[in-house]
Amino acid sequence: MSTLLESYAAGRWFRAADHGDPLLDAATGEEVARISSRGLDLGAMVRHARETGGPALRALTFHERAGLLKAVAKHLSAGRDEFAALSTRTGATARDTAVDVDGGIGTLFSFASKGVRELPNDTIVLDGALERLGKAGTFVGQHVYTSRPGVAVQINAFNFPVWGMLEKLGPALLAGLPTIVKPASQTAYLTELVVRRIIESGLLPEGALQLVSGSAGGLLDELDMQDSVAFTGSAHTAGILRRHPNVIDGGVRLGVEADSLNCSILGPDVRADDPEFDLFIKGVVAEMTVKAGQKCTAIRRVIVPSAIAGQVVDALADRLAKVTTGDPRNPDVRMGALASLGQRDEVRKAIESLRAGSEVVVGDPDGGPLLDGDAERGAFLTPLVLRATPGAVEPHNVEPFGPVSTVITYDGPDEAVALAAKGKGSLVASVVTHDPDVARRVVLGLAPFHGRVLLLDRDDAKESTGHGSPLPMLVHGGPGRAGGGEELGGVRAVLHHMQRTAIQASPDLMTAVTGQWTTGAAQREGDVHPFRKSLAELRIGDTIRSARRTVTLDDIDHFAEFTGDTFYAHTDPEAAARNPLFGGIVAHGYLVVSLAAGLFVEPSPGPVLANYGVDNLRFLTPVKAGDTIAVTLTAKQIKPRNSADYGEVRWDAVVTNQDGAPVATYDVLTLVAKTWPADE
Amino acid sequence: MSTLLESYAAGRWFRAADHGDPLLDAATGEEVARISSRGLDLGAMVRHARETGGPALRALTFHERAGLLKAVAKHLSAGRDEFAALSTRTGATARDTAVDVDGGIGTLFSFASKGVRELPNDTIVLDGALERLGKAGTFVGQHVYTSRPGVAVQINAFNFPVWGMLEKLGPALLAGLPTIVKPASQTAYLTELVVRRIIESGLLPEGALQLVSGSAGGLLDELDMQDSVAFTGSAHTAGILRRHPNVIDGGVRLGVEADSLNCSILGPDVRADDPEFDLFIKGVVAEMTVKAGQKCTAIRRVIVPSAIAGQVVDALADRLAKVTTGDPRNPDVRMGALASLGQRDEVRKAIESLRAGSEVVVGDPDGGPLLDGDAERGAFLTPLVLRATPGAVEPHNVEPFGPVSTVITYDGPDEAVALAAKGKGSLVASVVTHDPDVARRVVLGLAPFHGRVLLLDRDDAKESTGHGSPLPMLVHGGPGRAGGGEELGGVRAVLHHMQRTAIQASPDLMTAVTGQWTTGAAQREGDVHPFRKSLAELRIGDTIRSARRTVTLDDIDHFAEFTGDTFYAHTDPEAAARNPLFGGIVAHGYLVVSLAAGLFVEPSPGPVLANYGVDNLRFLTPVKAGDTIAVTLTAKQIKPRNSADYGEVRWDAVVTNQDGAPVATYDVLTLVAKTWPADE
Repeated sequence: MSTLLESYAAGRWFRAADHGDPLLDAATGEEVARISSRGLDLGAMVRHARETGGPALRALTFHERAGLLKAVAKHLSAGRDEFAALSTRTGATARDTAVDVDGGIGTLFSFASKGVRELPNDTIVLDGALERLGKAGTFVGQHVYTSRPGVAVQINAFNFPVWGMLEKLGPALLAGLPTIVKPASQTAYLTELVVRRIIESGLLPEGALQLVSGSAGGLLDELDMQDSVAFTGSAHTAGILRRHPNVIDGGVRLGVEADSLNCSILGPDVRADDPEFDLFIKGVVAEMTVKAGQKCTAIRRVIVPSAIAGQVVDALADRLAKVTTGDPRNPDVRMGALASLGQRDEVRKAIESLRAGSEVVVGDPDGGPLLDGDAERGAFLTPLVLRATPGAVEPHNVEPFGPVSTVITYDGPDEAVALAAKGKGSLVASVVTHDPDVARRVVLGLAPFHGRVLLLDRDDAKESTGHGSPLPMLVHGGPGRAGGGEELGGVRAVLHHMQRTAIQASPDLMTAVTGQWTTGAAQREGDVHPFRKSLAELRIGDTIRSARRTVTLDDIDHFAEFTGDTFYAHTDPEAAARNPLFGGIVAHGYLVVSLAAGLFVEPSPGPVLANYGVDNLRFLTPVKAGDTIAVTLTAKQIKPRNSADYGEVRWDAVVTNQDGAPVATYDVLTLVAKTWPADE
Repeated sequence: MSTLLESYAAGRWFRAADHGDPLLDAATGEEVARISSRGLDLGAMVRHARETGGPALRALTFHERAGLLKAVAKHLSAGRDEFAALSTRTGATARDTAVDVDGGIGTLFSFASKGVRELPNDTIVLDGALERLGKAGTFVGQHVYTSRPGVAVQINAFNFPVWGMLEKLGPALLAGLPTIVKPASQTAYLTELVVRRIIESGLLPEGALQLVSGSAGGLLDELDMQDSVAFTGSAHTAGILRRHPNVIDGGVRLGVEADSLNCSILGPDVRADDPEFDLFIKGVVAEMTVKAGQKCTAIRRVIVPSAIAGQVVDALADRLAKVTTGDPRNPDVRMGALASLGQRDEVRKAIESLRAGSEVVVGDPDGGPLLDGDAERGAFLTPLVLRATPGAVEPHNVEPFGPVSTVITYDGPDEAVALAAKGKGSLVASVVTHDPDVARRVVLGLAPFHGRVLLLDRDDAKESTGHGSPLPMLVHGGPGRAGGGEELGGVRAVLHHMQRTAIQASPDLMTAVTGQWTTGAAQREGDVHPFRKSLAELRIGDTIRSARRTVTLDDIDHFAEFTGDTFYAHTDPEAAARNPLFGGIVAHGYLVVSLAAGLFVEPSPGPVLANYGVDNLRFLTPVKAGDTIAVTLTAKQIKPRNSADYGEVRWDAVVTNQDGAPVATYDVLTLVAKTWPADE
């Protein structure tokens, strides 16, 4: 008898007392492992996550959590061959494994990188700009995201046992949420192996990651309003989860990625000899055959202009004829097996439903030739293309989760959009066109019904990652039938796990809460210029109020001549007087900020290493000859880098004139050494 | 018999054939109106919204829709006295009416303003930065928000018949969604009057606003995945809506704002003679008595340090003794009636439940004295304060929707947060403290359980809008028991109505789809400098590639001397050589952008009126003496203003050196005349 998969629960590996159910190799039918969760204490797992894993994760900053992700990704990367070998048993070819295993690890790396670059080295995230809530500025509002003291449960589909886990794990850990993973049984042996390697590495805090191998029935009963469930699978199961009392009445957050009848549309501008025609055919065949079509993002509907439909079918037939099906251990096999014989039965049933309104035009529904493999014991299915009769409804409602697509014809871009919309919400649509007008019209028509739209043409084809690939930095999910959820999308996925709250306070207390200086809050002027303070010494609110400088007409003339910026508002009194905004000669905005820098700078070597940028510079009041300016610079945000001996300091800069009116406001961005002198 | 309220459906006022049910004056019991929707064709209303109202709204830009909101707000503002008079019949005092009627109109004004200032003069919104998806830059990603071709249904509570409608209507119309309003029957006469005045004004496109007076049973059956329902009311009704098949399986988006056991926490630092103590007492009493406590945001739980609880109860008793209850027509009345006798029965039942674990410490549960009004026919209830026994669960679970609060004691900030969390998710919490450490600790503990947290102290008290006031620019909603929805929050509320989609394309097609120039897309250089083109002539992608200029050591020396920016990296070769980032003298960043302006500027008077700012300036490569720079400026975004004869143009600026390496990138913001010469 094969190995019984274990669960990782409350700090130890748990082995069920029974023999469990067998899990079979997709291509050979041999037993790979057995699975059971009988006797597993799901309540104890949830408590462990809440009491041990959550607090440990939330004690870390986003940058530190990103560091964990990177370490885990590196560790898994080093062990990927072991995962790849086991992946073959799911029916996956080497190409399929690259999508699942390498794609999953790459997603972790991507979140690690986004976490450092786009999130603060802190535990909360500010959302949007400060809102001034009163005229005097004593009452302000700021939205913040905070981590929930809950648990993230992920319930995954069988088709991506590695990527499916890691794409949900990365954002959850970044958000400070411990995770309980529940893989689909059929391919749980691969998930279990990856989780085992992560746990063994000791890289994650205890309780941050747990695994249920086998049934998780009853898990939702343990959850409450701080917890979330991310589900990928069928609409049927999604409906069961949505009806759970803890979801309906208990505030458990449920994100769903379910059925999706994705389409690819061939633009009306494309002729059979255009490069876009080949790109379209290649895209459809790739999506039909990668993972044997077992992808939530695969192309189920091939929407083409009526006039060219025959050529499309012929080209698909040609290209599919080259796709060899069989045991993925054979390197000449292009397409492997479905995950199980049960899955093959499901697809065959779907094909029968589709045939009510469509005819088979490529392939044999009773099974085509295999290059290698046992047609009885292996879950093989050869590619099949149907062509819908006009008005057929099945192609828009039946999802054959295998290498099956249906060609549907349209006349005019609006009909193409209307056909796509009949899918009632999908994960992704692709549009193959080289015409900008078609692109805008079709994409904006498709967008409300899709989470992602790919525009493919000769210009992006070389670098395109294709119709079916969710990317870590782009949202993955779709409205309506596709479940209404949003995964990935970079930082968006992290924020989905967090709670957004509007904080209202005085500037001083707002500064205390957010850790970022707020306009109106206390400013501390000391004996030491803040540019002489290292990150270790600098405090939020440290301020320098500069000396004053009068801007003369000579200064303006000279600056114009020196820089070549002889715009009439700086050089020609009569023309400047006619300018509706100035009414006379004004100083260059760049002159004002240059002089301001001269007023606030501290010349000698010190902890401030460089000014690397400026944000949100606005010129509010024109500066005229004779005006006297001064600048106030206040330390607003201090971001030490974990990977360098310096960090970023953002300074609030306000330049005022002799009347106290602000003439320019901006943020000055500097790099500041952690200690000074640097060798301390 | 009183008037039968009408519905506004599919372009006409609909009057039911039956007599309808009576709606009674809250204070006198007299019949105000009757209500029935019998015979109303809800399906026709949904079709009308989809086919007439939606397309008309979506043909407008955000700025044009904002203009509609402003016009409607002005129109309602002019007629507010009529609404205020009718509002009295709901039991509302003048103060209550200010919250509902004036607050609602103010919310529309606020969204009109946000729509112009924070949304583009276009029909789509870009979300986040461009994502480079391939190394060569030929494949890029951009998230966009588009309008759904659906209907927004709002189902409102009885307590804010005007504000409740307008706070949902503003964001929906901005998002391009036609709205069907279903007010709670009890106060529907006021909503009906306001809708009637809006429809009469002819300001909104036909189909943009419809009204159901009476039952809307069956309305959800008509909705699908492009439609959304925003519900405010009881958790019980929310549960019924959540179980509707079109919500569970049909993709209808449901936003809920339901029960909420909001709390106000008195900080452990506050003594009875601190100004914060008075602020706390005033806040609790205000929230108990405004709208007779019939506010979703009212303070139900008064969480105070054990040591000071007695003083809190005494102070509440003193202040509540001055609150006169009675018919709101009497100007000496401070607190009016509940909405109906039925509501009063509900509150009395809740009080009975609360008394299981709490004792009454202020007020008489059998009814205190009335200043004016009929205690039998008017739905009066005098204020009541209970004090919870330690460990009582009822105050955290029972919401008395009237002038009733319970005092709960704590020891230490962590217990205060833990008690607040027992509410299982609320709309708002307030914390009254003047201690920054208490503020940070308590606010960040409360945040995951709340949609809004107010910090009140002596500094913001004067301008504070108080615990119970949702503001248009801050999110309103809360997790868990509070329903999990988010309303308001400025542009956030608009985006909640829209679909976010990731677009992947080549830079040229991305530019075509978004209408904004994308790095890598075609740049058009013509004979005419783009600064000589008016908004009418300028096109996205119009480009100027400047001449080149060598930056000399003299330039750097001179700039340092002229501006006073003598930072050592610009002036001291030895010290600059030791700088880890520069390794030698470098030009000032401000010098580089000043010279760049000199290179791209067009000096004579023309359509470019001013440079009003710079965004996202980053210095990427140091410029050293002898380096030669040039700048490329490309029209990236063109935003005509509807209210001025000019608009904003955002230019992509890239400064490169002699090796083609980018040394600085930024956006230049200019104001450009719509036509030139201006009188054309």
